[in-house]
Amino acid sequence: MNASGSGTTVADVGEFALIALIRERLGAVSGTTGSALIIGPGDDAAEIPAPGGSLLISSDLLVEGRHFRRDWSSAEDVGRKAAAANLSDINAMGGSATALTVSLGLPGDLSVDWVLQLADGLGAECAVVGAEIAGGDITASDAIVIAISAVGQATRAVRRDTAAPGDVIAFAGTLGLAGAGFATLSRGFRSPRAVVDAHRVPTPPYTAGPQAAAAGATALIDVSDGLLADLGHIARGSGVVIDLDSAAFPISEWVTTVAEALGSEPLRYVLTGGDDYALVGSFSHEIPEGWIRIGVARHPELGEEPSVLVDGAPYEGAQGHQHFR
Amino acid sequence: MNASGSGTTVADVGEFALIALIRERLGAVSGTTGSALIIGPGDDAAEIPAPGGSLLISSDLLVEGRHFRRDWSSAEDVGRKAAAANLSDINAMGGSATALTVSLGLPGDLSVDWVLQLADGLGAECAVVGAEIAGGDITASDAIVIAISAVGQATRAVRRDTAAPGDVIAFAGTLGLAGAGFATLSRGFRSPRAVVDAHRVPTPPYTAGPQAAAAGATALIDVSDGLLADLGHIARGSGVVIDLDSAAFPISEWVTTVAEALGSEPLRYVLTGGDDYALVGSFSHEIPEGWIRIGVARHPELGEEPSVLVDGAPYEGAQGHQHFR
Repeated sequence: MNASGSGTTVADVGEFALIALIRERLGAVSGTTGSALIIGPGDDAAEIPAPGGSLLISSDLLVEGRHFRRDWSSAEDVGRKAAAANLSDINAMGGSATALTVSLGLPGDLSVDWVLQLADGLGAECAVVGAEIAGGDITASDAIVIAISAVGQATRAVRRDTAAPGDVIAFAGTLGLAGAGFATLSRGFRSPRAVVDAHRVPTPPYTAGPQAAAAGATALIDVSDGLLADLGHIARGSGVVIDLDSAAFPISEWVTTVAEALGSEPLRYVLTGGDDYALVGSFSHEIPEGWIRIGVARHPELGEEPSVLVDGAPYEGAQGHQHFR
Repeated sequence: MNASGSGTTVADVGEFALIALIRERLGAVSGTTGSALIIGPGDDAAEIPAPGGSLLISSDLLVEGRHFRRDWSSAEDVGRKAAAANLSDINAMGGSATALTVSLGLPGDLSVDWVLQLADGLGAECAVVGAEIAGGDITASDAIVIAISAVGQATRAVRRDTAAPGDVIAFAGTLGLAGAGFATLSRGFRSPRAVVDAHRVPTPPYTAGPQAAAAGATALIDVSDGLLADLGHIARGSGVVIDLDSAAFPISEWVTTVAEALGSEPLRYVLTGGDDYALVGSFSHEIPEGWIRIGVARHPELGEEPSVLVDGAPYEGAQGHQHFR
């Protein structure tokens, strides 16, 4: 039975294959030829024609227990992170967010205070980039659900599938701190605060997206699932092999501390930890100020698949988070 | 203890009061003065400045068991209705939708076929108005969750809080069919098909919104929660009393049939049934072709609150759906 046969479940096929099946199905209905979309599904955000230009739009769905835990994070932390994840998607197109809509599914026995502190966090993170909460919806649900859409604009929207052989790969922001924080919280510890706080409230490099677009970035993505996983989207989408230089990564002393305490490798958090919302991109010319060069893109050799290598070889270990797996 | 005191729950305050508390709280964070939003939270959609004009954006969250039931509706029906509810919000601003984003929360054991048929329904309803699905997100969740944002444009966006005394109240589309269908399904019946189908897949009057805007509508809203409930938003927002003439409503023979069978009043479905996604608005001049005049707006008398009356008196009976109540 193939993946779309009856009886096959969502868990059988997994998140990414399911998205591919839906896109295929929607293409058959609405017609991909003749689409008015400038950038359609599959990138960090879509680019839609608008009078006098275009707009970027991106959506994320967060579910309690899967994307956040009330015993790990305050309501304000959850709000900041939920907003940050969506604002980061616009950043990852080289754009600036102007507005969010926020729809909430809430259990009836949830305290009003928790909801208002969530709103505080959403508002505070929006204020960082000058975006506003334009609307939303509230409904009853058994688990807390936070559905956000972010709208923004870019002078030049940068896709994720347009890196070219010879491009330099560079990143802006932090890598590994949030992943080390997640590992710390998962083991029941509440410190070091630097990593735990990084997991609770990310600090995306919000000016780095427009900066990269202006500097001529050829491809751009934000690191939400882990650097290798997200660079994998650039590599496969662009048909290139990306080779990273492990010695090029700055590694926070906090990441080293956590790795030592938990018997892990610091580089593992840097390469596979999610939730830092760093930006990583490819550049055919100079990389912008503040970005750090970590590797190069090249043509696949004969019989080689597009992929991400570390020091010339596949990295052993988890490749980031995928739902239903 | 006041409504925002600690210990107070979401169910204690209810949907509309909670929305008001969140808006108040967000205003204190992001500053309502100096807002760039043309129309902010509280209308069918927000209006956001965009290069060369503005855009409309609206979001809805649907949860299985609360907004749809898999034993009542096919996956394609659920998809059509979910898209329709959001496309209708743009219609209710006098606009035309151009794109949707769709985020799905899905149980791992859900069949892939169900999800693809949901996508069929979403795509088919978008095709009715020429909108496209631009992106979204998929995550694991215990219950099926469908979060949609709709983006659109209007030559002139029509608010819900700008009706004036002396305006004529009129509607376009159908009223009561979906409510009668809900009552029918709730009693365990599957026919008459005309009402059951209307509940499963609404047929919003998608051209009536831009038509009303062009005709100078002073206020506009779609009927999702029930005519009295939704007209109540126009009345309170605009500070007017709306007096409806019960004899003015066309009543479908199917609604009469269901009312007789279930021992109810046909007018009750027309006035309080939701999910038909008719448009209702106020007009200071002539009403557009195809719209039906059902009442007038007037100044409240001394000591009278803005409200909706039927034949000069409050209507006895349910006033539409509110979550957590």
